[in-house]
Amino acid sequence: MSNISAELAKKSLEDFAGIIEKHLLAILPDSSGMEEQVVDAMRYALLAGGKRLRPFLVMQSAGLFEVEIEAARRVAIAIECIHTYSLIHDDLPAMDDDDMRRGKPSVHKQFDEATAILAGDALLTTAFEILAHKNTHKDANVRCELVAALAKAAGAIGMVGGQMIDLKAENQSLQLEQIRRMQQMKTGALIVFSCEAGAILAKVTDERHEALVGYAGDIGLAFQIVDDLLDVESNSEDIGKTAGKDAQAGKATLVSLMGVSEAKRAAEALIEDAVSQLELFDEKADVLRSLANFVLHRAH
Amino acid sequence: MSNISAELAKKSLEDFAGIIEKHLLAILPDSSGMEEQVVDAMRYALLAGGKRLRPFLVMQSAGLFEVEIEAARRVAIAIECIHTYSLIHDDLPAMDDDDMRRGKPSVHKQFDEATAILAGDALLTTAFEILAHKNTHKDANVRCELVAALAKAAGAIGMVGGQMIDLKAENQSLQLEQIRRMQQMKTGALIVFSCEAGAILAKVTDERHEALVGYAGDIGLAFQIVDDLLDVESNSEDIGKTAGKDAQAGKATLVSLMGVSEAKRAAEALIEDAVSQLELFDEKADVLRSLANFVLHRAH
Repeated sequence: MSNISAELAKKSLEDFAGIIEKHLLAILPDSSGMEEQVVDAMRYALLAGGKRLRPFLVMQSAGLFEVEIEAARRVAIAIECIHTYSLIHDDLPAMDDDDMRRGKPSVHKQFDEATAILAGDALLTTAFEILAHKNTHKDANVRCELVAALAKAAGAIGMVGGQMIDLKAENQSLQLEQIRRMQQMKTGALIVFSCEAGAILAKVTDERHEALVGYAGDIGLAFQIVDDLLDVESNSEDIGKTAGKDAQAGKATLVSLMGVSEAKRAAEALIEDAVSQLELFDEKADVLRSLANFVLHRAH
Repeated sequence: MSNISAELAKKSLEDFAGIIEKHLLAILPDSSGMEEQVVDAMRYALLAGGKRLRPFLVMQSAGLFEVEIEAARRVAIAIECIHTYSLIHDDLPAMDDDDMRRGKPSVHKQFDEATAILAGDALLTTAFEILAHKNTHKDANVRCELVAALAKAAGAIGMVGGQMIDLKAENQSLQLEQIRRMQQMKTGALIVFSCEAGAILAKVTDERHEALVGYAGDIGLAFQIVDDLLDVESNSEDIGKTAGKDAQAGKATLVSLMGVSEAKRAAEALIEDAVSQLELFDEKADVLRSLANFVLHRAH
């Protein structure tokens, strides 16, 4: 296990979350027409807080290869647009039906369902517009690779497919392997993209790219296990949404199938593996090492 | 007014609609997992028929510049994915609440609302994945330009913004200019992209590109006026959805504000202008000339 404590990542992540917001706002279209409500809803959702983990991972992975800040930041913003759209749509009554998100009304409660659907659609669309723009990278091949990789991670065999499985799981009990696959699609794919973004921007295709993919797979799954543990252990106030929701819905989770102690052990093993993936990198990867421990220590 | 009758375009469009379906199916991801339902819904929506006007415009505009068929077809499919996603989401209960689409149950009726939202999201995402792929054009700059242009046309200051305005128009009467702007965003922007796609693929940036944009703007608006006329004049059976819906909802349309005769004259003037935009082109543009008349003569 790495001896780099969670504190370094915790502090970096907090600082970053404060900085990224103004860059997120800058991508909203100038609008003074009647369509302004959809832009307002996009802004509301983008500024609703959150850990900003995915854009942070982009900036950190890009930092390993000394990618230009502006390039990394554009990819970071694109991925936060995708993540934000997915939260808006997932919260809809027809999906997870969550009225609250991070202690505030969900977009469809603050506005209405139609606006929430459209704001999600627009954020999803905007992500690709940002990536395709020449300011994202001088080499158009790199920009296309980013578009293709993000689309794959977000689409029917990635995030959207994972959400489909998760919804169907309400009517049938999934096995451990099925839940793991669902999580890899629903949340893992986007975390993998966030971590490999630095390598794509730097045109690094060697084992360092693979190591980042491995690291991301580990922390993504660990993150989910820890989330399930928090879901079991926390109360509504602490996590800003209805706690124990999965348990109430009778849905199997990694934790309900493995048990709390086994789940904790599995998360620890994943974090250990995540850190070992970073052996190829020097101290520039220390924040990522620390982040692995941060993911784990959110829980206990 | 061009003397090329609507028949040429009508026939070409019908032939094309029969051919494009198998290419549409080819873009669906191979899926044998639990997420298959979302892929089934994508397939159902893609195969629900329709005129295939937008992909047809891509093929025709690409044909003016002898762009490779495979490249044009990929862009055509991408735009049909976007159009199909927009229909799925527009039909949702929270949006236009249409249970039928082209005489068949809408996606949310055939499956459920959650699956419809996700299938729309996945189709939107897939469109950009298709455009970014190297088979779409050997020059990555062209692929990025396609992604950026389609994203702009489909996003908050394009199609999504237009739908937002249309929804808000249920609570307030729009003026003629506001309706025109709404239509240009909601349906015009995607038709413009379809027509300029050929020029982008051929890297043509001169007045021929502009002429196609002008042509598209004209036929897009004419198409909408004719749609409103059909909405007033037709019955439910003919057009496969609830007729006179806008009138029932008390929504102002171009036709309700201009009156039927004035609206017909406006559509004719637009078509005349559309054909005149094509003067730069030789007989390769005859199908587009014919199409302009076809758009007009759907109505009377």
